[in-house]
Amino acid sequence: MVLSEDASEAFSKAIREISRRIGGEKVLTDPEDLIPYSIDASKRFEGVPWAVVRVNSTEDVSAVLQVADRERIPVIPRGSASCLTGAVVAKRGGIVIDLLPMHRVEVYPEDLVVMAEAGATVQRVDEECRRHGLMFPPDPASSKVATVGGALAENAGGIRGAKYGVMKNWLLALEVVLPGGRVLRVGEPTLKWRWGPDLTGLFVGSEGWLGVITRAWFKVIPVPERVVRVVGVFPDMESAGRAAADIRASGILPLGLEIMNAETLRAVSRATGIDLPREGAMLIADVDGPREAISRLAKAVAECMRRAGGEVTLSDDPEEMERLYLARKMAYASLTRLYRAVEIEDITVPLSRFPEALRRIDELAKRYGLPLPTFGHAGDGNVHPTICYDPDDEDQVERARRLAEEICDVAIELGGAVSGEHGIGIQKTGALRRELRARGAEYYLDLLREIKRVLDPNNIMNPGNFDL
Amino acid sequence: MVLSEDASEAFSKAIREISRRIGGEKVLTDPEDLIPYSIDASKRFEGVPWAVVRVNSTEDVSAVLQVADRERIPVIPRGSASCLTGAVVAKRGGIVIDLLPMHRVEVYPEDLVVMAEAGATVQRVDEECRRHGLMFPPDPASSKVATVGGALAENAGGIRGAKYGVMKNWLLALEVVLPGGRVLRVGEPTLKWRWGPDLTGLFVGSEGWLGVITRAWFKVIPVPERVVRVVGVFPDMESAGRAAADIRASGILPLGLEIMNAETLRAVSRATGIDLPREGAMLIADVDGPREAISRLAKAVAECMRRAGGEVTLSDDPEEMERLYLARKMAYASLTRLYRAVEIEDITVPLSRFPEALRRIDELAKRYGLPLPTFGHAGDGNVHPTICYDPDDEDQVERARRLAEEICDVAIELGGAVSGEHGIGIQKTGALRRELRARGAEYYLDLLREIKRVLDPNNIMNPGNFDL
Repeated sequence: MVLSEDASEAFSKAIREISRRIGGEKVLTDPEDLIPYSIDASKRFEGVPWAVVRVNSTEDVSAVLQVADRERIPVIPRGSASCLTGAVVAKRGGIVIDLLPMHRVEVYPEDLVVMAEAGATVQRVDEECRRHGLMFPPDPASSKVATVGGALAENAGGIRGAKYGVMKNWLLALEVVLPGGRVLRVGEPTLKWRWGPDLTGLFVGSEGWLGVITRAWFKVIPVPERVVRVVGVFPDMESAGRAAADIRASGILPLGLEIMNAETLRAVSRATGIDLPREGAMLIADVDGPREAISRLAKAVAECMRRAGGEVTLSDDPEEMERLYLARKMAYASLTRLYRAVEIEDITVPLSRFPEALRRIDELAKRYGLPLPTFGHAGDGNVHPTICYDPDDEDQVERARRLAEEICDVAIELGGAVSGEHGIGIQKTGALRRELRARGAEYYLDLLREIKRVLDPNNIMNPGNFDL
Repeated sequence: MVLSEDASEAFSKAIREISRRIGGEKVLTDPEDLIPYSIDASKRFEGVPWAVVRVNSTEDVSAVLQVADRERIPVIPRGSASCLTGAVVAKRGGIVIDLLPMHRVEVYPEDLVVMAEAGATVQRVDEECRRHGLMFPPDPASSKVATVGGALAENAGGIRGAKYGVMKNWLLALEVVLPGGRVLRVGEPTLKWRWGPDLTGLFVGSEGWLGVITRAWFKVIPVPERVVRVVGVFPDMESAGRAAADIRASGILPLGLEIMNAETLRAVSRATGIDLPREGAMLIADVDGPREAISRLAKAVAECMRRAGGEVTLSDDPEEMERLYLARKMAYASLTRLYRAVEIEDITVPLSRFPEALRRIDELAKRYGLPLPTFGHAGDGNVHPTICYDPDDEDQVERARRLAEEICDVAIELGGAVSGEHGIGIQKTGALRRELRARGAEYYLDLLREIKRVLDPNNIMNPGNFDL
């Protein structure tokens, strides 16, 4: 969005006021400084902000939101932009608030609580906890860069989600700055508290659309005594999916249960040099628990895999475990290196429908004739079919568009969701609308609009996101 | 609240309309039928509704909320009323919606999901899950009667909360009827889903103040292979509290970690005939896990107890375990049988401050000269000092009032909350205001009021609750 001359003058005045109040060294307005802030990790959505403010404190955020609200300037909170749906892109210009400088992490080991500022990476929160024998369970594939604020705004899941769920399952309390600059604190850094309606949830999954998360308190748990990795190689995705369902039904709750199809395995091998099978499908199960029990649990998982036709290897060698973990974590990045355009999908289905979902995705890949590397979290029914295409070939672009729709429709038909952890952003607004219509749940959107008007009456927060 | 003649006429018309639409046999208006609906389990708060509607379906609830909203009639959703803060009492008259007839439970074992209607008891949800080798972890002491709707509206915790948290940690999706009769569905019955802001949280802890929860979907987990109960008897509460802190710091996450002081033990003995120590304090730790590991883990817990001065016994005999469990579950009920008036408090503190909180509660008991049986959940820093007094003795009533305030102030000073799981209702509005002021978090209440206006513009839902 380009500003008119009057608007441009008003914006310059606003930026001068912000600079005066929080320090000009925190404010970027030179075009070459703004370009790195114009995309997210999807590389599919773009929008250049008019300015970037690198905030150091809640007070800084408050000052920006006070001025921006008064002057009706769009504000987009941003961490590392590992987002895959365009949620952190300045769709209508405005000010990007860069929260990376706010990265304090404080562990209270005796309380089993950690406080993290929004710009701290998820991995660092976990690392700080591990100095005290504790673990921060959420573990998005991008945890090395993904920030706490972004992971909360997306309610991120990740590889350990099969057992340990998503960000909101660990959240105790929040600090959020609202348009106008008011600081909202919700909750106490205690394992239980009751105020009234739990307003923390409003901001979980809100994609910077209601306010700026500045810090959060989470509960943490002791590091599991031991983890073993069980790897199965299967003739096809459906049999790998059956093994996953069988493991879940056997009374064992694996820490993680990751699945990858042949196209994904080949891509990761090519992009990273990691030696992986080239055909079939792979299932990686991590089992954690007390040391005496771990080998029996791992054997039971291996048995489920064998019954479904898998060839199995077990490992608790840290180096070998890391190698396979990297293979999974690198899946999306590998595809972006090999293909000119990739669109990653993010559907979830009930666990019982997971093998069926995999079979139907496979059929769609054949029907549309586009590479569709598919991987994801079999432990919570979340899979990422990733459409690869040539952005200069109109026919491929159109097929990619229709394939994306059909993948989302599989989720809707099987009683699942069009997004599990990547969120809505720009990518998923149409698909979300279809999902809500199928459930008779359109009223959710009406209500969302009304709540937006309460929290952000001037619609300055990430306008154009969740385009309702 | 007594109705004027005009209002009474309008109310009668509204009730006739509701009877016509959903069936007159579901509507109670005879005074003798209304009395059982006039109190909650605290027996401290009272309000007789003008009518009770026993609903069978979401459609019934919708019809009541349509008529009530149009006619501005207060509506109070109610399950078994095991509530302890007056939240389900008709403070300003109106219609009580009795959700007990809505008690369907459906387990989807392959999905690791259970659907429960609002009137199903928490214990029955767990029992239905157990037929499939699964467990529904939340476990309030009143789980035999407490309903899913009430437990969500209070974000109940319970005995297994040390490891498994509170209701919201297991919630996947919700169906809620809003004033005016609109049915809001939020979320999917899948382990992950992303729509946008997670509106389920608005209703968790909302105490019937924003809408009527009609059904919910939860994730469940496999039943732990084994559970062992470790019981320690200590010279005083502070040493029991130290043992609890030491257990939590040792890397073991007990399923439950329950504490009771001597006054509680004596009261339970007297009221139930269960043989318990009469002096000191008791700590009950439940440890769950794979069968090979359980005895080592239990021994480690026992060692923590011994170090803090406890005499320890271990048991995995189901009958003995049940006896001790009952002793803890019966604590509040026993006190209500022995004393004419009891006010149960519900503070939480950071785990590291738990021994200090216990010491200060003990000092307060001595200073105020009132019986103060104290018990609670040492695993999540939540304790229930229970003030016992003679309601006809003005001096005792005044001392009880001041003691209640001081107990809440201990929580506020130690960085905790005035309620952990019982909620605000009528009992805690003043204390909550003090807590929010101490945290600079008063804005939470302003925002709550504005959100209330969006969801319930005519203020028909449980008016007088959270008296802001």
